[in-house]
Amino acid sequence: MARLFHVPLSPFCRKVRLSLAEKKIEVELVEEKYWEEDPDFMRRNPAGKVPVLRLDGVMMAESAAICEYIEETRPEPPLLPKDPVARQEVRRLVGWFDDKFHNEVTSRLLYERVNKKVMGQGYPDSGNVKAGAKAIRYHLDYMAWLLDHRRWLAGDAMTLADFAAAAHFSSLDYISDIDWNRSEVVKDWYAKIKSRPAFRSILADQVSGFPPPKHYNDLDF
Amino acid sequence: MARLFHVPLSPFCRKVRLSLAEKKIEVELVEEKYWEEDPDFMRRNPAGKVPVLRLDGVMMAESAAICEYIEETRPEPPLLPKDPVARQEVRRLVGWFDDKFHNEVTSRLLYERVNKKVMGQGYPDSGNVKAGAKAIRYHLDYMAWLLDHRRWLAGDAMTLADFAAAAHFSSLDYISDIDWNRSEVVKDWYAKIKSRPAFRSILADQVSGFPPPKHYNDLDF
Repeated sequence: MARLFHVPLSPFCRKVRLSLAEKKIEVELVEEKYWEEDPDFMRRNPAGKVPVLRLDGVMMAESAAICEYIEETRPEPPLLPKDPVARQEVRRLVGWFDDKFHNEVTSRLLYERVNKKVMGQGYPDSGNVKAGAKAIRYHLDYMAWLLDHRRWLAGDAMTLADFAAAAHFSSLDYISDIDWNRSEVVKDWYAKIKSRPAFRSILADQVSGFPPPKHYNDLDF
Repeated sequence: MARLFHVPLSPFCRKVRLSLAEKKIEVELVEEKYWEEDPDFMRRNPAGKVPVLRLDGVMMAESAAICEYIEETRPEPPLLPKDPVARQEVRRLVGWFDDKFHNEVTSRLLYERVNKKVMGQGYPDSGNVKAGAKAIRYHLDYMAWLLDHRRWLAGDAMTLADFAAAAHFSSLDYISDIDWNRSEVVKDWYAKIKSRPAFRSILADQVSGFPPPKHYNDLDF
């Protein structure tokens, strides 16, 4: 069986979990305290981070590389369109969330509030938290603009771009950092993706010391 | 003709330039001071960063997405192998350089020494510069380990992984931040890639206020 070394609230791990679940690939989840740099884990991924996936007898790292591998070896149901221009748009948006959104929002909210405590690195920096809370509004507005023109973020079909975004959103929603009142279309988009069977395992996550809010796993939030 | 909005020392822009040149796609280079957030540029890429490539009548952003598009529409000569596991390894290493190496090394050396001055953001932070200079040694050793086992970074053929790494290395070499004495195999690898015709335009770059060292464009450095 496939085995994923992960931490529950990592958006990069969640993106891989969503891809695997959508394609009905069973996976054993192994929680990995990657910041402790256990030598066995460092051998699996010298970059020292999660996700690391063992699939088809191969140890893989880097969420983008892993998702492309899954797509190439299990093309059904597709999470990338066939047309090169449309594929470019999907990958651009995956980059948007995993780079820009991650730096401006996730690292300033989730990492300050949760990761620091879990890793024993002290208290949240309030300047970072404030900057993250401010930046997410611009991102919500950009997504609303996209979703005014498209059914899903990258076009008419659900793709990896939606999973990348939903992975970040679900982790931030776990700590109540999403203002669902800002945009009706973004809320509708998240409700659609949240109700997919692929999302179930993510909605069941529990992080010790951080109980999720009531609405977190409510499909009618 | 293709048009690339770029800055000369950006490793992400250089990776795209190398891909285009290797596949003999002519491109017009337009220097873009992206940090000034010119409205025309922000329309081209709301993420507000370079590279942005206009190719086949389409405006594209995110270097990983751009390189995949080039590969899918101009497969010769290939910069990705055919086998999914080998492709995963190439993309893992592209991620290694564009994420890990970028955060630990490039952002602490190049951005402190050059970008801050060009953008009028003050003086280099010496703590960052010291941390970057320390971190690069580990990366050189990891590359040496890979190159002891393989002809190129990801296997027996030159790939996007080599271009991603060489893009960072060439930008750091422009400011003399690579210790070429640390590893003979890494130096040999860079000499091989530096002598390719695709590298010529990069070796001709000049940044005002930062003259390159003599060895920068010397193929026999």
